Amino acid sequence: MHTVLRSATREVVIGPDQPFCLIGERINPTGRKIFAEQLRRGDLSRIEIDVEQQVAGGATMLDVNMGVPLADEAELLAKAVTMVQELTDLPLVIDSSVVEALEAGLAAYDGKALVNSVTGERERLDAILPIVARHGAAVIALPNEEDEIPDEPERRLEITRKILDIAVGEYGIPVEDIVVDPLAMPVGADTTLVRTTLRTIELISGELGLNMTLGASNVSFGMPGRPALGATFLPMAMSCGLTSAIMDVRSPQIVEAVKAADLLLGNDEWGAAWIARARAAAAGKTA
Amino acid sequence: MHTVLRSATREVVIGPDQPFCLIGERINPTGRKIFAEQLRRGDLSRIEIDVEQQVAGGATMLDVNMGVPLADEAELLAKAVTMVQELTDLPLVIDSSVVEALEAGLAAYDGKALVNSVTGERERLDAILPIVARHGAAVIALPNEEDEIPDEPERRLEITRKILDIAVGEYGIPVEDIVVDPLAMPVGADTTLVRTTLRTIELISGELGLNMTLGASNVSFGMPGRPALGATFLPMAMSCGLTSAIMDVRSPQIVEAVKAADLLLGNDEWGAAWIARARAAAAGKTA
Repeated sequence: MHTVLRSATREVVIGPDQPFCLIGERINPTGRKIFAEQLRRGDLSRIEIDVEQQVAGGATMLDVNMGVPLADEAELLAKAVTMVQELTDLPLVIDSSVVEALEAGLAAYDGKALVNSVTGERERLDAILPIVARHGAAVIALPNEEDEIPDEPERRLEITRKILDIAVGEYGIPVEDIVVDPLAMPVGADTTLVRTTLRTIELISGELGLNMTLGASNVSFGMPGRPALGATFLPMAMSCGLTSAIMDVRSPQIVEAVKAADLLLGNDEWGAAWIARARAAAAGKTA
Repeated sequence: MHTVLRSATREVVIGPDQPFCLIGERINPTGRKIFAEQLRRGDLSRIEIDVEQQVAGGATMLDVNMGVPLADEAELLAKAVTMVQELTDLPLVIDSSVVEALEAGLAAYDGKALVNSVTGERERLDAILPIVARHGAAVIALPNEEDEIPDEPERRLEITRKILDIAVGEYGIPVEDIVVDPLAMPVGADTTLVRTTLRTIELISGELGLNMTLGASNVSFGMPGRPALGATFLPMAMSCGLTSAIMDVRSPQIVEAVKAADLLLGNDEWGAAWIARARAAAAGKTA
């Protein structure tokens, strides 16, 4: 299945037969005190550096989140989306838990965006899916409900089916425009959680064939050696069927691992991209 | 399923709930002209360095192969096995395509070895399995026959079943002492080959629950960026069910990826090994 996203001038295709879709996670004030403070003051200038670094790192898309407490998130998100479009032609992920902010972000966007995200509660679905449908966007579906993050992959599959039924059946969103988040949790909290995520990816890939994305940095949260953990987790998840991630594209180790996994999964024809990367690295350029 | 191997004083357990078993590939003259020439002259001194480097790199076991053309392989292998046992207490993989060499290597070994390997032809099975049974060894089963390396994972499963029937049914080898090699091929030859290997691993893990090992360096043969490819391939294969590999344990990048995958698969309780590694690295010691 192919999920197609667009900016005004560029198209990205997510799919199991495509190179992995690397979504830059950086434009997000969560855990960034200085950036959050700047945004609260209406200073969005830092975004320019975030865009530049993530484009240089090899991002396929960029996530834009303006979740700053005590700020007008809708206004900020619309401004940020406008600004990012002036800086890059990469398609965007419009990221908020606030319905009005999603609406404002989509209104400011020229193209087909990926909306991040909707969960399985009826009221959230009825609030967010009409906006997604009206803007012809795609949407990330999180298979959790009312602060319940199901432990069982089968339960996550069940909630995914429910979201799918409503999104496709009631709101007419094309099935390929539902991208599932199989829920990646910190391995430091419980070393069984990553197996659950991998099993969920296998299940959703096998049963539904949908594209998937997840917040890859969650996995290594609180642990030492985060780049190595990210560089290990993503190929594992890709071999189970993950087709995209919201991730730290500024880490050369993680991006290299994703490119290696593209090659190993047969999504880098003749190894052309891998060999070009190696040549550029050997020539001392940014690989 | 647990496969137990032993030296005179140390035991190694291979299994899906165990840390990955890293088998050092280095003691092998294939592709090493100087080493092959030394061995042909009866000079085994280089092995000392190979053992030291692989123990330092984190090997769980060591493969010993003395396949030098125009040399008495049986005599060399017996000598090498004797020598390696004086240098380390890691259990050994006795590796040869020559039946007499396997016999001589096993005779020189004090413990329960892993024999590398037997293929699916009736005459090879009847030549090698009695030796394996007599020495109480475990054996690596390669699901190929008469120079046919099957393209289809299902065919590899079928040959594995055949080997299993004969090894267990006719020669009384315990089923847990059959370690399957799902056959890793160079991605540079054909970018679909790794998917075939991964699918074979899933099939054999799911259908038979056997332990598996493979020659991991084959995958990156002829490609640039070999450590990165190895560090990406092994976690992918581990997430599909691979429990061991014959590999380049001298590469810190590859070994780090395997340790990260142990953690992510829940085989590093509390992350103790991962955190200890990170601390050692931070303290400037060999991590």
